[in-house]
Amino acid sequence: MTYCVGMLPEAGLVMIADTRTNAGVDNISVYRKLHMLADGEDRIVVACSAGNLSVTQTLLSTLEEGLPPLEEGGEPRRIAHVATMFRAAQLVSEASILANRAANVLLAGTGIDSSTTLLLGGRIGDGPLELFLIYPEGNFIQCRPDTPFLQIGQTMYGKPILDRVLDYRTPLEETVKVGLISFDGTLRSNLAVGRPLDLIAIPADRSEPVVRRRIAEDDAYFNELSTRWSALLNESRAAIPDPPFMKSAG
Amino acid sequence: MTYCVGMLPEAGLVMIADTRTNAGVDNISVYRKLHMLADGEDRIVVACSAGNLSVTQTLLSTLEEGLPPLEEGGEPRRIAHVATMFRAAQLVSEASILANRAANVLLAGTGIDSSTTLLLGGRIGDGPLELFLIYPEGNFIQCRPDTPFLQIGQTMYGKPILDRVLDYRTPLEETVKVGLISFDGTLRSNLAVGRPLDLIAIPADRSEPVVRRRIAEDDAYFNELSTRWSALLNESRAAIPDPPFMKSAG
Repeated sequence: MTYCVGMLPEAGLVMIADTRTNAGVDNISVYRKLHMLADGEDRIVVACSAGNLSVTQTLLSTLEEGLPPLEEGGEPRRIAHVATMFRAAQLVSEASILANRAANVLLAGTGIDSSTTLLLGGRIGDGPLELFLIYPEGNFIQCRPDTPFLQIGQTMYGKPILDRVLDYRTPLEETVKVGLISFDGTLRSNLAVGRPLDLIAIPADRSEPVVRRRIAEDDAYFNELSTRWSALLNESRAAIPDPPFMKSAG
Repeated sequence: MTYCVGMLPEAGLVMIADTRTNAGVDNISVYRKLHMLADGEDRIVVACSAGNLSVTQTLLSTLEEGLPPLEEGGEPRRIAHVATMFRAAQLVSEASILANRAANVLLAGTGIDSSTTLLLGGRIGDGPLELFLIYPEGNFIQCRPDTPFLQIGQTMYGKPILDRVLDYRTPLEETVKVGLISFDGTLRSNLAVGRPLDLIAIPADRSEPVVRRRIAEDDAYFNELSTRWSALLNESRAAIPDPPFMKSAG
Protein backbone atom coordinates (compact mmCIF):
# COMPACT_ATOMS: atom_id res chain seq x y z
CA MET A 1 0.00 0.00 0.00
CA THR A 2 0.93 3.61 -0.29
CA TYR A 3 0.09 7.14 0.63
CA CYS A 4 1.08 10.08 -1.62
CA VAL A 5 -0.14 13.65 -1.54
CA GLY A 6 0.39 16.54 -3.93
CA MET A 7 -0.45 20.08 -2.78
CA LEU A 8 -0.63 23.11 -5.03
CA PRO A 9 -1.34 26.37 -3.22
CA GLU A 10 -0.34 29.61 -4.95
CA ALA A 11 3.04 29.51 -3.16
CA GLY A 12 4.21 26.38 -4.95
CA LEU A 13 4.01 22.63 -5.39
CA VAL A 14 4.71 20.08 -2.65
CA MET A 15 4.67 16.33 -3.29
CA ILE A 16 5.26 13.71 -0.59
CA ALA A 17 5.30 9.92 -0.93
CA ASP A 18 5.93 7.06 1.46
CA THR A 19 8.18 4.14 0.47
CA ARG A 20 6.53 1.02 1.86
CA THR A 21 5.85 -1.75 -0.60
CA ASN A 22 4.21 -4.86 0.70
CA ALA A 23 2.95 -8.18 -0.53
CA GLY A 24 1.30 -9.20 2.72
CA VAL A 25 2.50 -7.99 6.10
CA ASP A 26 5.36 -10.51 6.09
CA ASN A 27 6.94 -9.17 2.92
CA ILE A 28 7.64 -5.45 3.14
CA SER A 29 10.36 -3.45 1.43
CA VAL A 30 11.45 0.11 0.82
CA TYR A 31 10.82 1.31 -2.74
CA ARG A 32 10.96 4.88 -3.88
CA LYS A 33 7.54 6.10 -5.09
CA LEU A 34 8.52 9.70 -5.84
CA HIS A 35 10.15 9.68 -9.25
CA MET A 36 11.95 12.52 -11.06
CA LEU A 37 10.81 12.22 -14.68
CA ALA A 38 12.65 15.39 -15.76
CA ASP A 39 14.95 17.66 -13.84
CA GLY A 40 16.62 20.21 -16.06
CA GLU A 41 16.98 23.89 -16.88
CA ASP A 42 13.58 24.24 -18.55
CA ARG A 43 11.52 21.58 -16.79
CA ILE A 44 10.99 19.72 -13.55
CA VAL A 45 8.49 16.88 -13.67
CA VAL A 46 7.75 14.57 -10.73
CA ALA A 47 5.52 11.49 -10.47
CA CYS A 48 4.26 9.66 -7.38
CA SER A 49 2.84 6.17 -7.83
CA ALA A 50 0.40 3.95 -5.96
CA GLY A 51 -0.49 0.45 -6.97
CA ASN A 52 1.10 -2.57 -8.55
CA LEU A 53 4.92 -2.27 -8.35
CA SER A 54 5.70 -4.20 -11.55
CA VAL A 55 3.27 -2.06 -13.54
CA THR A 56 4.76 1.12 -12.06
CA GLN A 57 8.28 0.03 -12.98
CA THR A 58 7.22 -0.92 -16.52
CA LEU A 59 5.52 2.45 -16.88
CA LEU A 60 8.63 4.33 -15.71
CA SER A 61 10.92 2.32 -18.01
CA THR A 62 8.56 2.96 -20.92
CA LEU A 63 8.71 6.70 -20.24
CA GLU A 64 12.49 6.57 -20.00
CA GLU A 65 12.81 4.68 -23.30
CA GLY A 66 10.25 6.95 -24.86
CA LEU A 67 6.80 6.10 -26.22
CA PRO A 68 6.69 4.78 -29.82
CA PRO A 69 6.96 7.60 -32.39
CA LEU A 70 3.69 8.70 -34.01
CA GLU A 71 5.11 8.50 -37.52
CA GLU A 72 7.61 6.12 -39.05
CA GLY A 73 11.19 7.27 -38.57
CA GLY A 74 10.12 9.73 -35.89
CA GLU A 75 11.71 10.18 -32.48
CA PRO A 76 10.50 8.24 -29.45
CA ARG A 77 8.26 10.56 -27.39
CA ARG A 78 9.74 11.57 -24.04
CA ILE A 79 8.89 13.88 -21.15
CA ALA A 80 12.05 15.77 -22.09
CA HIS A 81 10.41 16.93 -25.34
CA VAL A 82 6.81 17.76 -24.45
CA ALA A 83 5.85 21.44 -24.48
CA THR A 84 3.41 21.62 -21.54
CA MET A 85 2.43 19.79 -18.37
CA PHE A 86 -0.85 18.85 -20.08
CA ARG A 87 1.17 17.07 -22.78
CA ALA A 88 3.29 15.43 -20.07
CA ALA A 89 0.09 14.14 -18.41
CA GLN A 90 -1.09 12.74 -21.75
CA LEU A 91 2.25 10.98 -22.30
CA VAL A 92 2.28 9.47 -18.80
CA SER A 93 -1.33 8.43 -19.26
CA GLU A 94 -0.39 6.66 -22.49
CA ALA A 95 2.51 4.86 -20.79
CA SER A 96 0.21 3.89 -17.93
CA ILE A 97 -2.37 2.42 -20.31
CA LEU A 98 0.33 0.38 -22.09
CA ALA A 99 1.77 -0.93 -18.81
CA ASN A 100 -1.66 -1.73 -17.38
CA ARG A 101 -2.75 -3.50 -20.53
CA ALA A 102 0.35 -5.69 -20.63
CA ALA A 103 -0.13 -6.62 -16.97
CA ASN A 104 -3.82 -7.36 -17.43
CA VAL A 105 -2.95 -10.00 -20.02
CA LEU A 106 -0.36 -11.61 -17.74
CA LEU A 107 -2.49 -11.44 -14.60
CA ALA A 108 -5.86 -12.35 -16.12
CA GLY A 109 -7.74 -14.69 -13.80
CA THR A 110 -5.22 -14.46 -10.94
CA GLY A 111 -7.23 -11.93 -8.95
CA ILE A 112 -4.07 -9.79 -8.61
CA ASP A 113 -4.81 -6.09 -8.94
CA SER A 114 -2.59 -4.61 -11.64
CA SER A 115 -3.90 -1.06 -11.43
CA THR A 116 -1.61 1.91 -10.85
CA THR A 117 -2.60 5.46 -10.01
CA LEU A 118 -0.26 8.43 -10.35
CA LEU A 119 0.22 11.97 -9.25
CA LEU A 120 2.10 14.07 -11.80
CA GLY A 121 3.36 17.50 -10.92
CA GLY A 122 5.84 20.07 -12.10
CA ARG A 123 6.57 22.89 -14.49
CA ILE A 124 7.69 23.05 -18.11
CA GLY A 125 9.25 26.11 -19.77
CA ASP A 126 7.47 29.33 -18.87
CA GLY A 127 4.32 27.47 -17.82
CA PRO A 128 2.85 27.49 -14.32
CA LEU A 129 3.23 24.73 -11.74
CA GLU A 130 0.57 22.10 -12.38
CA LEU A 131 -0.56 18.90 -10.69
CA PHE A 132 -2.55 15.96 -12.12
CA LEU A 133 -4.02 12.71 -10.84
CA ILE A 134 -3.87 9.96 -13.49
CA TYR A 135 -6.32 7.10 -12.96
CA PRO A 136 -5.50 3.46 -13.87
CA GLU A 137 -7.79 3.76 -16.92
CA GLY A 138 -5.64 6.62 -18.23
CA ASN A 139 -8.05 9.52 -17.72
CA PHE A 140 -6.84 12.33 -15.49
CA ILE A 141 -7.93 15.33 -13.46
CA GLN A 142 -6.07 18.52 -12.64
CA CYS A 143 -5.67 20.16 -9.24
CA ARG A 144 -7.43 23.54 -8.95
CA PRO A 145 -7.41 26.32 -6.32
CA ASP A 146 -10.76 25.40 -4.66
CA THR A 147 -9.27 22.12 -3.41
CA PRO A 148 -5.52 22.63 -3.69
CA PHE A 149 -4.48 19.01 -3.13
CA LEU A 150 -4.76 15.53 -4.66
CA GLN A 151 -4.13 12.22 -2.90
CA ILE A 152 -3.56 8.62 -3.99
CA GLY A 153 -3.32 5.31 -2.07
CA GLN A 154 -4.52 5.24 1.55
CA THR A 155 -6.06 8.69 1.34
CA MET A 156 -8.71 8.70 4.05
CA TYR A 157 -6.71 8.86 7.28
CA GLY A 158 -4.90 12.01 6.17
CA LYS A 159 -7.79 13.75 4.41
CA PRO A 160 -9.59 15.48 7.31
CA ILE A 161 -6.54 17.59 8.23
CA LEU A 162 -6.08 18.66 4.59
CA ASP A 163 -9.80 19.46 4.27
CA ARG A 164 -9.65 21.68 7.34
CA VAL A 165 -6.31 23.36 7.27
CA LEU A 166 -5.02 23.70 3.72
CA ASP A 167 -6.18 26.40 1.34
CA TYR A 168 -4.89 28.23 -1.71
CA ARG A 169 -3.25 30.94 0.39
CA THR A 170 -1.28 28.59 2.68
CA PRO A 171 2.45 29.51 2.53
CA LEU A 172 4.89 26.87 1.24
CA GLU A 173 6.52 26.09 4.64
CA GLU A 174 3.05 25.62 6.16
CA THR A 175 1.99 23.45 3.24
CA VAL A 176 4.96 21.15 3.87
CA LYS A 177 4.07 21.04 7.57
CA VAL A 178 0.39 20.21 6.87
CA GLY A 179 1.46 17.51 4.42
CA LEU A 180 3.71 15.94 7.04
CA ILE A 181 0.92 16.08 9.66
CA SER A 182 -1.37 14.33 7.17
CA PHE A 183 1.33 11.66 6.74
CA ASP A 184 1.91 11.33 10.46
CA GLY A 185 -1.72 10.42 11.13
CA THR A 186 -1.69 7.90 8.27
CA LEU A 187 1.57 6.29 9.45
CA ARG A 188 0.13 5.84 12.94
CA SER A 189 -3.13 4.30 11.78
CA ASN A 190 -2.01 2.12 8.86
CA LEU A 191 0.94 -0.29 8.84
CA ALA A 192 0.94 -0.43 5.05
CA VAL A 193 2.31 3.12 4.88
CA GLY A 194 5.86 3.62 6.14
CA ARG A 195 8.89 5.86 6.34
CA PRO A 196 11.21 6.97 4.85
CA LEU A 197 9.14 9.66 3.14
CA ASP A 198 10.33 11.43 0.01
CA LEU A 199 9.46 15.09 -0.33
CA ILE A 200 9.89 17.74 -2.98
CA ALA A 201 8.87 21.39 -2.65
CA ILE A 202 8.99 23.61 -5.73
CA PRO A 203 8.38 27.31 -4.97
CA ALA A 204 6.23 29.21 -7.45
CA ASP A 205 8.85 31.96 -7.21
CA ARG A 206 11.53 30.72 -9.61
CA SER A 207 14.26 32.58 -7.72
CA GLU A 208 13.82 30.32 -4.70
CA PRO A 209 15.52 26.92 -4.56
CA VAL A 210 13.72 23.58 -4.99
CA VAL A 211 13.83 21.56 -1.74
CA ARG A 212 14.30 17.78 -1.87
CA ARG A 213 14.29 15.75 1.30
CA ARG A 214 14.16 12.14 2.45
CA ILE A 215 12.61 11.85 5.89
CA ALA A 216 13.94 8.71 7.57
CA GLU A 217 12.90 6.91 10.76
CA ASP A 218 15.36 8.98 12.78
CA ASP A 219 14.39 12.38 11.32
CA ALA A 220 14.47 14.69 14.36
CA TYR A 221 12.07 17.27 12.92
CA PHE A 222 9.44 14.71 11.91
CA ASN A 223 9.67 12.93 15.26
CA GLU A 224 9.22 16.20 17.11
CA LEU A 225 6.29 17.14 14.84
CA SER A 226 4.66 13.78 15.62
CA THR A 227 5.11 14.12 19.40
CA ARG A 228 4.00 17.73 19.49
CA TRP A 229 1.01 17.10 17.26
CA SER A 230 -0.24 14.41 19.66
CA ALA A 231 0.22 16.78 22.61
CA LEU A 232 -1.51 19.61 20.74
CA LEU A 233 -4.46 17.38 19.79
CA ASN A 234 -4.85 16.44 23.44
CA GLU A 235 -4.66 20.09 24.51
CA SER A 236 -7.20 20.97 21.80
CA ARG A 237 -9.52 18.24 22.98
CA ALA A 238 -9.22 19.50 26.56
CA ALA A 239 -9.93 23.07 25.37
CA ILE A 240 -13.32 22.08 23.93
CA PRO A 241 -16.11 22.37 26.53
CA ASP A 242 -17.67 19.17 27.85
CA PRO A 243 -20.95 18.19 26.16
CA PRO A 244 -23.67 19.97 28.16
CA PHE A 245 -25.91 16.90 27.94
CA MET A 246 -23.21 14.91 29.78
CA LYS A 247 -22.98 17.36 32.69
CA SER A 248 -26.33 16.20 33.98
CA ALA A 249 -24.71 12.77 34.27
CA GLY A 250 -21.83 14.01 36.47
CA MET B 1 -22.68 4.37 3.81
CA THR B 2 -22.26 4.74 7.51
CA TYR B 3 -19.96 5.56 10.35
CA CYS B 4 -20.45 4.07 13.83
CA VAL B 5 -18.05 3.99 16.74
CA GLY B 6 -18.21 2.20 20.07
CA MET B 7 -15.83 3.24 22.86
CA LEU B 8 -15.27 1.33 26.07
CA PRO B 9 -12.90 3.02 28.49
CA GLU B 10 -13.14 2.02 32.17
CA ALA B 11 -15.57 4.91 32.78
CA GLY B 12 -18.31 3.43 30.61
CA LEU B 13 -19.62 2.65 27.15
CA VAL B 14 -20.30 5.24 24.45
CA MET B 15 -21.85 4.35 21.09
CA ILE B 16 -22.47 6.85 18.29
CA ALA B 17 -24.00 6.24 14.86
CA ASP B 18 -24.85 8.47 11.92
CA THR B 19 -28.20 8.14 10.14
CA ARG B 20 -27.46 8.58 6.43
CA THR B 21 -28.64 5.81 4.15
CA ASN B 22 -27.95 6.18 0.49
CA ALA B 23 -28.43 4.33 -2.73
CA GLY B 24 -26.35 6.66 -4.87
CA VAL B 25 -25.90 10.34 -4.05
CA ASP B 26 -29.33 11.16 -5.47
CA ASN B 27 -31.22 8.91 -3.10
CA ILE B 28 -30.41 9.65 0.52
CA SER B 29 -32.59 9.20 3.59
CA VAL B 30 -32.42 9.32 7.35
CA TYR B 31 -32.55 5.88 8.99
CA ARG B 32 -31.72 5.17 12.58
CA LYS B 33 -28.66 2.90 12.86
CA LEU B 34 -28.44 2.85 16.65
CA HIS B 35 -30.95 0.29 17.86
CA MET B 36 -32.06 -0.51 21.41
CA LEU B 37 -32.30 -4.32 21.52
CA ALA B 38 -33.11 -4.38 25.23
CA ASP B 39 -33.69 -1.59 27.69
CA GLY B 40 -34.92 -2.81 31.04
CA GLU B 41 -34.14 -3.15 34.72
CA ASP B 42 -31.57 -5.92 34.33
CA ARG B 43 -30.17 -5.25 30.86
CA ILE B 44 -29.38 -2.60 28.30
CA VAL B 45 -28.26 -3.85 24.89
CA VAL B 46 -27.52 -1.57 21.93
CA ALA B 47 -26.60 -2.40 18.33
CA CYS B 48 -25.20 -0.14 15.61
CA SER B 49 -25.38 -1.36 12.02
CA ALA B 50 -23.45 -0.68 8.82
CA GLY B 51 -24.29 -2.23 5.49
CA ASN B 52 -27.29 -3.36 3.51
CA LEU B 53 -30.46 -1.76 4.95
CA SER B 54 -32.85 -4.58 4.06
CA VAL B 55 -30.56 -7.16 5.69
CA THR B 56 -30.24 -4.98 8.80
CA GLN B 57 -34.01 -4.64 9.09
CA THR B 58 -34.56 -8.38 8.59
CA LEU B 59 -31.93 -9.06 11.26
CA LEU B 60 -33.61 -6.70 13.73
CA SER B 61 -37.07 -8.14 13.06
CA THR B 62 -35.69 -11.67 13.51
CA LEU B 63 -34.23 -10.67 16.88
CA GLU B 64 -37.52 -9.08 17.89
CA GLU B 65 -39.54 -12.17 16.92
CA GLY B 66 -36.96 -14.37 18.54
CA LEU B 67 -34.66 -16.94 16.95
CA PRO B 68 -36.19 -20.45 16.40
CA PRO B 69 -36.20 -22.49 19.63
CA LEU B 70 -33.46 -25.12 19.95
CA GLU B 71 -35.88 -27.87 20.95
CA GLU B 72 -39.42 -28.56 19.83
CA GLY B 73 -41.99 -26.71 21.91
CA GLY B 74 -39.28 -24.41 23.33
CA GLU B 75 -39.46 -20.64 23.56
CA PRO B 76 -38.16 -18.41 20.76
CA ARG B 77 -34.70 -17.16 21.78
CA ARG B 78 -34.56 -13.42 22.50
CA ILE B 79 -32.05 -10.88 23.78
CA ALA B 80 -34.45 -10.44 26.71
CA HIS B 81 -33.60 -13.95 27.93
CA VAL B 82 -29.84 -14.40 27.39
CA ALA B 83 -27.68 -14.48 30.51
CA THR B 84 -24.56 -12.64 29.32
CA MET B 85 -23.37 -10.19 26.66
CA PHE B 86 -21.38 -13.04 25.11
CA ARG B 87 -24.65 -14.96 24.64
CA ALA B 88 -26.24 -11.82 23.23
CA ALA B 89 -23.38 -11.54 20.70
CA GLN B 90 -23.93 -15.19 19.72
CA LEU B 91 -27.66 -14.61 19.24
CA VAL B 92 -27.14 -11.47 17.14
CA SER B 93 -24.50 -13.30 15.12
CA GLU B 94 -26.99 -16.10 14.43
CA ALA B 95 -29.66 -13.60 13.33
CA SER B 96 -27.09 -11.86 11.13
CA ILE B 97 -26.12 -15.14 9.44
CA LEU B 98 -29.79 -15.96 8.76
CA ALA B 99 -30.51 -12.51 7.32
CA ASN B 100 -27.34 -12.48 5.21
CA ARG B 101 -28.02 -15.96 3.88
CA ALA B 102 -31.56 -15.10 2.84
CA ALA B 103 -30.34 -11.95 1.09
CA ASN B 104 -27.50 -13.80 -0.65
CA VAL B 105 -30.05 -16.09 -2.29
CA LEU B 106 -32.20 -13.16 -3.44
CA LEU B 107 -29.28 -11.00 -4.59
CA ALA B 108 -27.13 -13.72 -6.19
CA GLY B 109 -25.62 -12.44 -9.42
CA THR B 110 -26.85 -8.87 -8.99
CA GLY B 111 -23.53 -7.55 -7.69
CA ILE B 112 -25.40 -5.90 -4.79
CA ASP B 113 -23.50 -6.18 -1.51
CA SER B 114 -25.77 -7.75 1.10
CA SER B 115 -23.25 -7.75 3.93
CA THR B 116 -23.99 -6.13 7.27
CA THR B 117 -21.55 -5.42 10.09
CA LEU B 118 -22.64 -4.65 13.65
CA LEU B 119 -21.41 -3.16 16.88
CA LEU B 120 -23.10 -4.68 19.91
CA GLY B 121 -22.66 -3.13 23.33
CA GLY B 122 -24.27 -3.11 26.71
CA ARG B 123 -24.63 -4.84 30.05
CA ILE B 124 -26.69 -7.77 31.29
CA GLY B 125 -27.46 -8.50 34.94
CA ASP B 126 -24.45 -8.06 37.19
CA GLY B 127 -22.04 -8.39 34.27
CA PRO B 128 -19.64 -5.67 33.11
CA LEU B 129 -20.17 -3.36 30.15
CA GLU B 130 -18.99 -5.14 27.00
CA LEU B 131 -18.63 -4.23 23.33
CA PHE B 132 -18.42 -6.52 20.29
CA LEU B 133 -17.92 -6.13 16.54
CA ILE B 134 -19.89 -8.75 14.58
CA TYR B 135 -18.62 -9.38 11.04
CA PRO B 136 -20.96 -10.21 8.12
CA GLU B 137 -19.81 -13.85 8.30
CA GLY B 138 -21.06 -14.05 11.89
CA ASN B 139 -17.72 -14.25 13.72
CA PHE B 140 -17.06 -11.51 16.25
CA ILE B 141 -14.37 -9.78 18.27
CA GLN B 142 -14.57 -8.09 21.65
CA CYS B 143 -13.25 -4.65 22.60
CA ARG B 144 -10.38 -4.77 25.11
CA PRO B 145 -8.58 -2.10 27.17
CA ASP B 146 -5.44 -1.84 24.95
CA THR B 147 -7.56 -0.41 22.10
CA PRO B 148 -10.75 0.75 23.82
CA PHE B 149 -12.80 1.36 20.66
CA LEU B 150 -14.30 -0.44 17.67
CA GLN B 151 -15.51 1.16 14.42
CA ILE B 152 -17.66 0.07 11.49
CA GLY B 153 -18.48 1.68 8.13
CA GLN B 154 -16.33 4.60 6.94
CA THR B 155 -13.77 4.11 9.69
CA MET B 156 -10.59 5.66 8.33
CA TYR B 157 -11.27 9.41 8.45
CA GLY B 158 -12.06 9.28 12.17
CA LYS B 159 -9.44 6.72 13.23
CA PRO B 160 -6.32 8.91 13.68
CA ILE B 161 -7.95 11.04 16.40
CA LEU B 162 -9.09 7.91 18.29
CA ASP B 163 -5.65 6.33 17.93
CA ARG B 164 -4.01 9.40 19.42
CA VAL B 165 -6.35 10.71 22.04
CA LEU B 166 -8.47 7.89 23.47
CA ASP B 167 -7.21 5.47 26.09
CA TYR B 168 -8.63 3.26 28.79
CA ARG B 169 -8.41 6.01 31.41
CA THR B 170 -10.29 8.67 29.40
CA PRO B 171 -13.28 9.97 31.44
CA LEU B 172 -16.77 9.47 30.02
CA GLU B 173 -17.43 13.14 29.10
CA GLU B 174 -14.07 13.26 27.28
CA THR B 175 -14.85 9.99 25.53
CA VAL B 176 -18.10 11.46 24.19
CA LYS B 177 -16.20 14.56 23.06
CA VAL B 178 -13.50 12.52 21.27
CA GLY B 179 -16.19 10.42 19.60
CA LEU B 180 -17.91 13.55 18.32
CA ILE B 181 -14.59 14.97 17.05
CA SER B 182 -14.00 11.69 15.21
CA PHE B 183 -17.48 12.05 13.67
CA ASP B 184 -16.95 15.69 12.79
CA GLY B 185 -13.87 14.90 10.68
CA THR B 186 -15.73 12.07 8.93
CA LEU B 187 -18.81 14.22 8.21
CA ARG B 188 -16.60 16.90 6.66
CA SER B 189 -14.67 14.51 4.44
CA ASN B 190 -17.37 12.04 3.35
CA LEU B 191 -20.83 12.90 2.04
CA ALA B 192 -22.07 9.36 2.69
CA VAL B 193 -22.03 10.00 6.45
CA GLY B 194 -24.58 12.51 7.76
CA ARG B 195 -26.35 13.97 10.74
CA PRO B 196 -28.44 13.53 12.82
CA LEU B 197 -26.18 11.41 15.00
CA ASP B 198 -27.56 9.07 17.65
CA LEU B 199 -25.56 8.73 20.83
CA ILE B 200 -25.82 6.66 23.98
CA ALA B 201 -23.47 6.87 26.97
CA ILE B 202 -23.74 4.23 29.70
CA PRO B 203 -21.63 5.01 32.77
CA ALA B 204 -19.81 2.08 34.36
CA ASP B 205 -21.05 3.47 37.68
CA ARG B 206 -24.61 2.13 37.86
CA SER B 207 -25.73 5.03 40.07
CA GLU B 208 -25.21 7.47 37.20
CA PRO B 209 -27.88 7.95 34.54
CA VAL B 210 -27.66 6.64 30.99
CA VAL B 211 -27.47 9.53 28.49
CA ARG B 212 -29.31 9.29 25.16
CA ARG B 213 -29.05 12.06 22.64
CA ARG B 214 -29.90 12.80 19.02
CA ILE B 215 -27.55 15.40 17.56
CA ALA B 216 -29.35 17.19 14.74
CA GLU B 217 -28.08 19.63 12.08
CA ASP B 218 -28.85 22.57 14.37
CA ASP B 219 -27.22 21.13 17.52
CA ALA B 220 -25.49 24.14 19.06
CA TYR B 221 -22.88 22.13 20.98
CA PHE B 222 -21.85 20.05 17.98
CA ASN B 223 -21.66 23.10 15.73
CA GLU B 224 -19.48 24.90 18.26
CA LEU B 225 -17.28 21.81 18.66
CA SER B 226 -16.83 21.69 14.88
CA THR B 227 -15.92 25.37 14.58
CA ARG B 228 -13.59 25.32 17.57
CA TRP B 229 -11.90 22.12 16.50
CA SER B 230 -11.04 23.69 13.11
CA ALA B 231 -9.65 26.76 14.86
CA LEU B 232 -7.68 24.64 17.33
CA LEU B 233 -6.21 22.51 14.53
CA ASN B 234 -5.07 25.67 12.79
CA GLU B 235 -3.55 27.01 16.01
CA SER B 236 -1.87 23.66 16.58
CA ARG B 237 -0.46 23.69 13.08
CA ALA B 238 0.87 27.20 13.63
CA ALA B 239 2.44 26.13 16.96
CA ILE B 240 4.58 23.49 15.26
CA PRO B 241 7.94 24.90 14.13
CA ASP B 242 8.56 25.31 10.40
CA PRO B 243 10.54 22.48 8.82
CA PRO B 244 14.21 23.48 9.21
CA PHE B 245 14.97 22.22 5.71
CA MET B 246 12.46 24.76 4.33
CA LYS B 247 14.06 27.73 6.08
CA SER B 248 16.96 27.64 3.66
CA ALA B 249 14.36 28.19 0.95
CA GLY B 250 12.97 31.35 2.56
